[in-house]
Amino acid sequence: MSTNRIEADYLLETPGDPRRVAEFMAGEQSSGTFVPVPGETPELKARAAARVIRLDVLDESAPAPALPSAGLKVTAETKFRRALVTLSWPFEILGPSLPNLLATVAGNLFELKPVTGLRLLDIRLPAEFADAYLGPGFGIAGTRRLSGVEGRPLIGTIIKPSVGLNPRETADLVAELCRAGIDFIKDDELQADGPACPFDERVAEVMRVINAHADRTGKKPMYAFNLTGDLDEMRHRHDTLLQHGATCMMASLNSVGLAGMIALRRFAQLPIHAHRNGWGYLTRHPMLGWSYIAWQKIWRLAGVDHMHVNGIGNKFAEDDESCIASARACLTPMFAGKPCTVMPVFSSAQTARQAPATYNGLGSVDLIVTAGGGIMAHPLGAAAGVEAMVDAWQAALAGIPLPDYAQSRPSLKRALEMAA
Amino acid sequence: MSTNRIEADYLLETPGDPRRVAEFMAGEQSSGTFVPVPGETPELKARAAARVIRLDVLDESAPAPALPSAGLKVTAETKFRRALVTLSWPFEILGPSLPNLLATVAGNLFELKPVTGLRLLDIRLPAEFADAYLGPGFGIAGTRRLSGVEGRPLIGTIIKPSVGLNPRETADLVAELCRAGIDFIKDDELQADGPACPFDERVAEVMRVINAHADRTGKKPMYAFNLTGDLDEMRHRHDTLLQHGATCMMASLNSVGLAGMIALRRFAQLPIHAHRNGWGYLTRHPMLGWSYIAWQKIWRLAGVDHMHVNGIGNKFAEDDESCIASARACLTPMFAGKPCTVMPVFSSAQTARQAPATYNGLGSVDLIVTAGGGIMAHPLGAAAGVEAMVDAWQAALAGIPLPDYAQSRPSLKRALEMAA
Repeated sequence: MSTNRIEADYLLETPGDPRRVAEFMAGEQSSGTFVPVPGETPELKARAAARVIRLDVLDESAPAPALPSAGLKVTAETKFRRALVTLSWPFEILGPSLPNLLATVAGNLFELKPVTGLRLLDIRLPAEFADAYLGPGFGIAGTRRLSGVEGRPLIGTIIKPSVGLNPRETADLVAELCRAGIDFIKDDELQADGPACPFDERVAEVMRVINAHADRTGKKPMYAFNLTGDLDEMRHRHDTLLQHGATCMMASLNSVGLAGMIALRRFAQLPIHAHRNGWGYLTRHPMLGWSYIAWQKIWRLAGVDHMHVNGIGNKFAEDDESCIASARACLTPMFAGKPCTVMPVFSSAQTARQAPATYNGLGSVDLIVTAGGGIMAHPLGAAAGVEAMVDAWQAALAGIPLPDYAQSRPSLKRALEMAA
Repeated sequence: MSTNRIEADYLLETPGDPRRVAEFMAGEQSSGTFVPVPGETPELKARAAARVIRLDVLDESAPAPALPSAGLKVTAETKFRRALVTLSWPFEILGPSLPNLLATVAGNLFELKPVTGLRLLDIRLPAEFADAYLGPGFGIAGTRRLSGVEGRPLIGTIIKPSVGLNPRETADLVAELCRAGIDFIKDDELQADGPACPFDERVAEVMRVINAHADRTGKKPMYAFNLTGDLDEMRHRHDTLLQHGATCMMASLNSVGLAGMIALRRFAQLPIHAHRNGWGYLTRHPMLGWSYIAWQKIWRLAGVDHMHVNGIGNKFAEDDESCIASARACLTPMFAGKPCTVMPVFSSAQTARQAPATYNGLGSVDLIVTAGGGIMAHPLGAAAGVEAMVDAWQAALAGIPLPDYAQSRPSLKRALEMAA
């Protein structure tokens, strides 16, 4: 970055004059009051003020507000106009602090009365932020090294049912997945340390199976244990993982929060698999909240290694274009000299069938794809399920249509029949 | 609580059958897959499953979805129906973990394809949660004890401009506010530890003034220093506060996050003033995200002492009814034997004028009210600004209309003229 200012891009909707409202946002997020008070000199304003550095009023306008606003005066003629706005802040008011960055670029301004829609689209940070935070400790290269998978995605799955299995039952399933040749397994985000499946016991049982498999075959599947919890619990669980030779940990970003994730990264000796559950409440309305493009930057700089991005043809409300844009963002360097790139994790109803669209959209094999039923419910068994996923990615890389490639590959053939 | 299940209430919108969608939500948040897999026995389901324990389909229906959903099949005849849904989970799948509670009651379900609107309205937790977390360390009684204010709200203000003042300029303003008789002062959420106003220096300068005032007068205004930052920074800043005799610290909830706030509470020896900036992106759309009623319970149990609730006639998009409901929630006990009640903090364009509506709505004087311009811009000076606020609350408590009460009270009289 050549600038030492912080920048944030927004999509704004307002019944007012977009320029005036953008200036109002800048004022609220720097001097922050309406009544001139003693001490607020022009010099001080020039030193500390946020600025509107871009304003593109869009052609579209809506007859009704995207978001209700109490006491807003509107008539039948009121048009709700939309604009792309970029605000910038002097680095000096904030320092290189991610938590305080949130209060600055994503604080009170979502609640302003003349704002009937506001979405944070992107952020750009000066290099001081790159120096202040660790970024991913393992990233793509470290994940490949620990899992021993090169040249293709990590083929993964999630332990299902999400809850209800005890540690022994979990380990039995893991044994089956190891035999099936899986690269990556993760806990469900609902499974952490409940009395029915305590974390420490689950780690002991599962790692016994994985370590034995690794000793026998030389292949050690990466298991992302969900250590989400209070910070002291996460510290203890991290040490338990190390002790048992585990190679990954998972944390729910919206459960742990930013200061917790930063602290976790500071003592982490294993890759952090970041789960985004709850993301829907941050993003689901197109005129409110966070775009993934802005959001993922925070967590990458804080130091996670894998970021969930949903998947092509997923069971959720997100379209494929948005999913691919999210995944591409994870692979886009953040700073010169400190790219902070992380592995995007594709999940939700994933099968062999999505490989070509995923590869064509992403333009990379640096990803983790987790398939639940797509692997476990394969009619020829889980090993065939894994094989079908690997086959599908070979086909995608070679640019060969899946049905053609499947002619000589029974696992892929049956997988395509199942997914049809 | 007589039950050992966790309950969550939602407002749901769907083009599908509300009962089927509610059952789908329960399934997704417990077993969590679509394809039956080995190990998912009826016994296991009965033990681990979430249940729909209440479904009230509302009369209203909308012709268009509140939230877009990719790939959702709708026709011109599709109606988007709304329902109140309560889900319950067995305590055993989770244990008494607030971070994992979030993943359970507010995880992936906001993104489900047949869900075109989902808002978390309330949560109820079994007593095991009360045992597992500390709750407020000071609460209402501790805040009154430290500030020496009884029988009326704490009258407070916010240092403005939000950013730009250096530590000495901040302390000069604090000196003026002390002379004015203020009870409570807070940093703005944009002010934490920027290079232009470092935390440690600000604390030293401000507390020198406050301690001197306390020595002279016996009254020690409570100053909430914004220590928001990484966890190690917050720990250091907390110790700095103790060392200088400060009596309060402030943290931005959405910046620090849940694990960080729980950790902060565990070492806190001062009240935690919780700022909710960013709350807008969690709540602003009425068919998405969090209600304050549900949200504030998480933070109270985690251990904050003061919670921001906006204010009557505020400058934001929230209406007065919602603000009062939030404040009342803060004063409503959470558990038998562990009420976790906290002081609601009223702010945003507050003046003497709002006292009667605030008191009538809340039915209590257990609150902090912060007025910026309402105090600092009083034509007779800040002391008259504070006096007018105290007068207004006396009038509200006595049930006397403000203009009547102001006849013999020039400070209040001028305040009312200013606010008109």
